[in-house]
Amino acid sequence: MENEDEKFMRMALGEARIAASQDEVPIGAVVVCGGQVIARAHNMTEALIDPTAHAEMQAITSATSNLGGKYLTDCTIYVTVEPCLMCAGAIAWSQMGRVVYGAADDKRGYHVYCDAPFHKRTQVATGVLADECAALITDFFRRKR
Amino acid sequence: MENEDEKFMRMALGEARIAASQDEVPIGAVVVCGGQVIARAHNMTEALIDPTAHAEMQAITSATSNLGGKYLTDCTIYVTVEPCLMCAGAIAWSQMGRVVYGAADDKRGYHVYCDAPFHKRTQVATGVLADECAALITDFFRRKR
Repeated sequence: MENEDEKFMRMALGEARIAASQDEVPIGAVVVCGGQVIARAHNMTEALIDPTAHAEMQAITSATSNLGGKYLTDCTIYVTVEPCLMCAGAIAWSQMGRVVYGAADDKRGYHVYCDAPFHKRTQVATGVLADECAALITDFFRRKR
Repeated sequence: MENEDEKFMRMALGEARIAASQDEVPIGAVVVCGGQVIARAHNMTEALIDPTAHAEMQAITSATSNLGGKYLTDCTIYVTVEPCLMCAGAIAWSQMGRVVYGAADDKRGYHVYCDAPFHKRTQVATGVLADECAALITDFFRRKR
């Protein structure tokens, strides 16, 4: 039986697939609060012609709008790929309770630049459905070449 | 006579003052391309209930929208306070040509977390009208107490 983290990561993977179908780098994110999905988003940098329109940024903006407050202390963000520095910084400002990501990103992931970008109370879990998350990215760039 | 950097930093200071008048942390940014201001913005995290709505983020989104492309290679961003990790990451994705900031931020500025978040070709200048930029922030938080 699939655990909660895998269940919500599958939703994030669904978002990533929407991105892929729109010729965007396939990364997806969902924000969960009290067992409920309060935001879901995918990378839209090409559609919006905006380098800041990563899945996590859209999801955080949507989640704070949904909750009516700037902080996501009681929330978990699920994202298919390790957040970049920008998204890690956004997660920090939101005081996200927990970050769960799938595939590591050894080129642009936050860990390449710094170890602890998040709020000191933020919990981090990694590697959830990592192979599926990574395969989407690999397939995307293979098709691009 | 004031130099170009001071001239554009004064515009960013004007944006920061708009933020202050709206009870937002007073930080402003302008993006300049070929001597023309193509975007100007101030922090709007309270108004938008969005922790990602920093001056730089708004300015980058506006500038890329204005130019119709994701990259700001030939642009300079002027920001009154050292960018945080999130904004530094956004500046990196935009491949901004040059970053000019006023006051350093020893608590949340990017330098607290990492040395070189920007694109390798991005030039950085610091300390432009630093006292004025810092005073706005100091006054704001003094009034808050």
